[in-house]
Amino acid sequence: MELNLDNLPRTISISRAPFGHSYIPEGFPVLTILDQTKLPYEVEFIEIVDWREVIDCIKQLKVRGAPAIGIAGAAAVLLRSAEYVYASTDDFRESESDFDRVFIIDEESFDPELYKISLEYAASMIKSARPTAVNLEWAVDSCMSIKDAELNAGSFPAQIEDSLYRYVSEMISNDEKENRQIGENGAKLLNENSKVLTHCNAGSLATSFYGTALGVVYTAAENGKIEMVYADETRPVLQGARLTAWELSRAKVPVTLICDSMAAYTMSECGIDAVIVGADRITSRGDVANKIGTLGLAIVAKRFNVPFYVAAPTSTIDPNILNGKDITIEMRDSSEILSAAIDGVEVLNPAFDVTPSELITAIITENGVFAPQEIEKALL
Amino acid sequence: MELNLDNLPRTISISRAPFGHSYIPEGFPVLTILDQTKLPYEVEFIEIVDWREVIDCIKQLKVRGAPAIGIAGAAAVLLRSAEYVYASTDDFRESESDFDRVFIIDEESFDPELYKISLEYAASMIKSARPTAVNLEWAVDSCMSIKDAELNAGSFPAQIEDSLYRYVSEMISNDEKENRQIGENGAKLLNENSKVLTHCNAGSLATSFYGTALGVVYTAAENGKIEMVYADETRPVLQGARLTAWELSRAKVPVTLICDSMAAYTMSECGIDAVIVGADRITSRGDVANKIGTLGLAIVAKRFNVPFYVAAPTSTIDPNILNGKDITIEMRDSSEILSAAIDGVEVLNPAFDVTPSELITAIITENGVFAPQEIEKALL
Repeated sequence: MELNLDNLPRTISISRAPFGHSYIPEGFPVLTILDQTKLPYEVEFIEIVDWREVIDCIKQLKVRGAPAIGIAGAAAVLLRSAEYVYASTDDFRESESDFDRVFIIDEESFDPELYKISLEYAASMIKSARPTAVNLEWAVDSCMSIKDAELNAGSFPAQIEDSLYRYVSEMISNDEKENRQIGENGAKLLNENSKVLTHCNAGSLATSFYGTALGVVYTAAENGKIEMVYADETRPVLQGARLTAWELSRAKVPVTLICDSMAAYTMSECGIDAVIVGADRITSRGDVANKIGTLGLAIVAKRFNVPFYVAAPTSTIDPNILNGKDITIEMRDSSEILSAAIDGVEVLNPAFDVTPSELITAIITENGVFAPQEIEKALL
Repeated sequence: MELNLDNLPRTISISRAPFGHSYIPEGFPVLTILDQTKLPYEVEFIEIVDWREVIDCIKQLKVRGAPAIGIAGAAAVLLRSAEYVYASTDDFRESESDFDRVFIIDEESFDPELYKISLEYAASMIKSARPTAVNLEWAVDSCMSIKDAELNAGSFPAQIEDSLYRYVSEMISNDEKENRQIGENGAKLLNENSKVLTHCNAGSLATSFYGTALGVVYTAAENGKIEMVYADETRPVLQGARLTAWELSRAKVPVTLICDSMAAYTMSECGIDAVIVGADRITSRGDVANKIGTLGLAIVAKRFNVPFYVAAPTSTIDPNILNGKDITIEMRDSSEILSAAIDGVEVLNPAFDVTPSELITAIITENGVFAPQEIEKALL
C-alpha cells in the first residue's frame, strides 16, 4: 500500500472572492474550512465571511486542532478588519444581499481609535472561543501586533487588511512547511516496521495540511517505517474514530481503531514502539496540555517503557507558563458525554489534561527534537 | 440523600410457571432477566424457557456481569434438564403452542446415557457463550456435578431437575448474601466522605442483587461514607454510563459520569480515595481479568497512590490458572466500536484485560479481604 496524501483535503484556506460572487463583494476575504463535525460521513466545506461565524465554528469543533484554530482565529481578525474596508451599512451582515452595497471607506473619515477598539474587541472574543490551545491566542495577538505596527506607520484599513491577508496566507503555508519539518525530525526517531499509537487527531485535519503527530507518521510511512497505527477513538467527541482513522485510511496508512481504554492492552499485547500525540499548549518546563486522556496514556506508556513523543510547532510553546497546572482547562458541555439525561447523574467533561514533562520522552518541533525540560531552546 | 435500594430491580430470578400460563406448562422453570441492553431507557424483563435463548442473551449482553452470567448459565442447564421432564414432541420448542402438549417421561423409557450426553452438549454450548468470566464455567460445572451425583444415585430426570432448580434458587440467594458480605468487608476499607472511582458495572445489575464493587459502595453509603462515585462510562458498550450511573442514581448514591480517558484527570484533580472494580476471573496468584480498561486504570491509580481494590465472590477465583496472561480474552465484534464502517480501518475489540497482582492493593471477597498474592486463602 503506497502513501497517498493527494487524497487528503486542505483543512483550512483563505482566498479573495472573485468578481460575480452571488453575495460576497469582489476581493472580500473568504475563509474556507472543512466541516469536521460532518466527517467521516461527508466531506463538506464552509465558506465564512463573518468573523463571528468563525468563533461559532471553533466552539462547535467544526474547525479544531491547535494549529488549525490558530489559523482560523487569525482569519477571523482579518475578516473583522475587512469589514472596515468593505463596509456598507451598519447592518450589512444582517442580510447576505446587503453585501453588494459595499464601498471603500474614505480615508478622511477614518477614526483609528474606534477602529482599534473594535478590532481589539473582536480579538478578545475570538481568543475566548477556546481557552486551552495557546495557538489561538498567539495567532490573534500576532495579528494585533501587525495592526498596531501598521497604525503606528499611519496605515489605513485597506493597507492593514492587506497586511493581515498576507499574514494569514503565510501562516497557512508556513504551517504546512513546519509540519513537514516536524515529520522529518520525528520520523528519524522511528525504526522500520514501527507500530505507533496516537490519541485524538493531531493530523492533517488539525492543521492546514499534513499534521503534527500524523505528520511524523506520514513521513515515516513514506520511508516505509510504519507497520500499523493504533488510533484511540478519543471520547467524547471521537476525533480518533471520526478523523484520525479517516485521514489515515484515505492516505493509505494502515490503521487499527481502538477504544481509549484499550491502550494499555494494546501496549501490553501488540508491541507498540512509540506513542505520538499533538499538543495544545506546552509550558516552559515541558508540561503538555493535550486532549483529555493524554495524561493516562503517558502514565501507561511509562509503565510499558514505550517512548512517548509530543509533536507540535513551536507556536504551541507558552513561555509565560512554567507549571502545567496553571493552564486553564476548558470544561465542555455534559451533552457530549450523555446522549440522554439520566436523573441525578452529574457529568464531568474536561476537554484536556496536562501531562508532566517527566512522562514525556521528547518533544518534536520544526526546529528539532528536544527534551521536554529544554523545550525553550526550540524558541531560540 | 438517603440510600434507597428498593428502587433497584432484581436482575435475575427463577420461578416455576403457574397454572394457566398461556404457553408454558405448569411447573416449568422460568428464568426472568432484566434486559440490560434496554437500560437506562426501558426497564424490561424477559422470561426465558429455552436454554438456547439464555446463550443468546449472554452473548448479546442482555444479561452480563460475571456473577449474573454464572447464574444464567446454571439456569440454562436447568432449563435443558426440564425439557426432559416436560418433553412433548421433538419440536416442542418450535412453536410456543406445542408447550401445552407436555407429559412426564415415564421412568422406564429413560436412557441415562443419552440424557447425560445431551446435558453435557448443552453445558459445553453454554460455557462457550463467553470465555473470560470463570463464574459461567464454574456454575455450569457445578450443575454437571449435581447431575452426575443424582445419576449415580439412580435418580430420574424429574429428581435431577428438582435438584438443579433448588441449586439455582440457592445460587441466587447466596449471591446476594455474599455480595452483602463483600459490602461489609469492603466498606471497612473506606473512610468518611470517600470519593470512589469505578469502571464498568460491578453493581446490582451484574449480580442477582446488591453488587460486588457497588456492593461495597452501597454498604459504605449506608454508613455515610460516600461523598461521590465517579463512574467510567466504559466504552465500547457503555456499562458505566448506561448501568452504573443508572443504578447508583436510582439508589440515591451521588454519581458523576466521566469518560474512561478522564480517570487520570479525575485522580489528579478531584482527590479520589479508592478505585473499586469487579472481576471476571482471578488467578491463583491474584492477577485479575476484568472489563477492558481496568489495567490502564490500575496503572494510573498506582501513579497517583490511589488504593486499587477488586471486589468479587470467591467463585471468581480460578485456582487452575497462575499467570493472568493465560486467561482467554474474548474478542468482540468491531461493530461495537465502529458505528459505521470506514474503508480500510481495522478494529481491535478485546472485551477484557488482565491486571497483574502487583497493581492491586487488595481483593475483597465474602470471606474477607486478601492481598492478591494470597487470594487462594479465600478458598480455604
